[in-house]
Amino acid sequence: MSGAAQVEIVEVGPRDGFQSIGPLIPTPTKIALIEQLHAAGIRRMETTSFVSASALPQLADAPAIVAAVARMPTLDSQVLVPTARHAERALAAGARHLSAVLSVSERHNMGNVRRTPMESVADYTQMVAMMPADASMRLNLATSFDCPHVGRIDRDAVLALLEPLVAASADVEIALCDTTGHADPAQVRGLFAAAADRFPQVRAWAFHGHDTYGLGAANVLAAWDVGIRIFDAAVAGLGGCPFAPGATGNVATEDLIWMFDHMGVETGIDLQKLVDAARAVAELPGAQVGGRVRQALGARACLAAS
Amino acid sequence: MSGAAQVEIVEVGPRDGFQSIGPLIPTPTKIALIEQLHAAGIRRMETTSFVSASALPQLADAPAIVAAVARMPTLDSQVLVPTARHAERALAAGARHLSAVLSVSERHNMGNVRRTPMESVADYTQMVAMMPADASMRLNLATSFDCPHVGRIDRDAVLALLEPLVAASADVEIALCDTTGHADPAQVRGLFAAAADRFPQVRAWAFHGHDTYGLGAANVLAAWDVGIRIFDAAVAGLGGCPFAPGATGNVATEDLIWMFDHMGVETGIDLQKLVDAARAVAELPGAQVGGRVRQALGARACLAAS
Repeated sequence: MSGAAQVEIVEVGPRDGFQSIGPLIPTPTKIALIEQLHAAGIRRMETTSFVSASALPQLADAPAIVAAVARMPTLDSQVLVPTARHAERALAAGARHLSAVLSVSERHNMGNVRRTPMESVADYTQMVAMMPADASMRLNLATSFDCPHVGRIDRDAVLALLEPLVAASADVEIALCDTTGHADPAQVRGLFAAAADRFPQVRAWAFHGHDTYGLGAANVLAAWDVGIRIFDAAVAGLGGCPFAPGATGNVATEDLIWMFDHMGVETGIDLQKLVDAARAVAELPGAQVGGRVRQALGARACLAAS
Repeated sequence: MSGAAQVEIVEVGPRDGFQSIGPLIPTPTKIALIEQLHAAGIRRMETTSFVSASALPQLADAPAIVAAVARMPTLDSQVLVPTARHAERALAAGARHLSAVLSVSERHNMGNVRRTPMESVADYTQMVAMMPADASMRLNLATSFDCPHVGRIDRDAVLALLEPLVAASADVEIALCDTTGHADPAQVRGLFAAAADRFPQVRAWAFHGHDTYGLGAANVLAAWDVGIRIFDAAVAGLGGCPFAPGATGNVATEDLIWMFDHMGVETGIDLQKLVDAARAVAELPGAQVGGRVRQALGARACLAAS
């Protein structure tokens, strides 16, 4: 026995969270929050995304973020890149951990990058080929469970798309993403078990979930039960849509840390420091927040009957 | 195979939820909401509690509620009774399904009924003996996981208290209650597995959970995984403490129905009608609500990147 079980949390608030916030967050504020999260024990973070500045002005400061995190040697910073062209820019800016993203749903992928999924596979293959020896890759497979346009995604469609992706490289961490929060625990278990069984050569699997329907933690638990040990989460449950008050964001990092702490799983993260960071994030103008632990901790105890 | 898996939901909003609301809810409003929940497919409900009217003025209309639900023959209505004296009153009012409650934590039980747990066991035994042949009993074991005064409850303490309780009667449904919401999925699995193993003669086990730290659905999933099929929940996640804005209430019924529907488990409940009821409940003056599905359904879809 090597000791307690461990879980690896990838904090995606600075990317998936911040991009949902309308008012521009000053770059020094972003860097200070990234530092605060890192000081709470976060060791992996999706810190920004290289996308069109006109499409997503909030992340137009990606090069400055990459430069700033380069001064945090113990932080594994990954940046999202939707195409090989964006990957080139990210690598040129000094990023050494890229998150490619493509969508199982053709309509969703067309909306994001004006390519069919198979066109994105070709682009991804090109991206893999251009990676320097000192860089690493994570692949986010969006709409692996459900698509906002076409609804539930068939498991076989995910497995079929994984074939050429895994053929391009197995030395990649692949995140199956519940983009809409519609996934349920049975679906999560089924897909991860099938994917790991079909593609045992993949370096690692991760789960990226949203808490839209209150199943954020339950879906993480379901993935944990079938052996998944890497989870995306956003501090304060950031990531909601400004046009849909109920469509909440990523599962809250502090809720997951609370759960794993209580289950005796090592997270390496200081919950109280993380909650302090979550409170700071929740005060950002325009932030759509979620999660429970941030509010529950510090609230006066109430003596319920049962 | 007898078809799809089934789950039994016990709606506790009219008891555990309403008791947390300060402003008195008019009795006809309560009855209308009970009827609306029943029309949504709810077949079991904790509709009220017989307690001291001075301690809990909100539930002083218990006899009127019992009389009203007697006119709903397809609703299995249970009423909470903390002592045999209250059980007498409930039976006299016509209630035929009682929920006894006692607490594993001595300090919590003393606070509720000024008895030690063993004194409550004696009282419970008396209650079992007074039950008419046409009545049935459910036992709520409060603080089975955690106590607001003393923290985590040891599994062995729960099992030890169950010994005389099960000896009093095994023809009882026993709910292990996460009173504070501090339970985690590993603890839930461990306790239910141990209890069912030690006391196979018990008619049925149920789980009563709160969503204080965002683990409401995850803990239900954990109990489901070890064979539990009866769950308490409150519409709109009612049950928070008016003095602690973050200390949210029971797991939201509509969130559980969403989860089980998506997992292919039969609930017998119409989600849209239930959400309509949840919205009505959320508008009660003084209501502390939670859950996600009520807000997420009907919100404009947002096209997230991953």
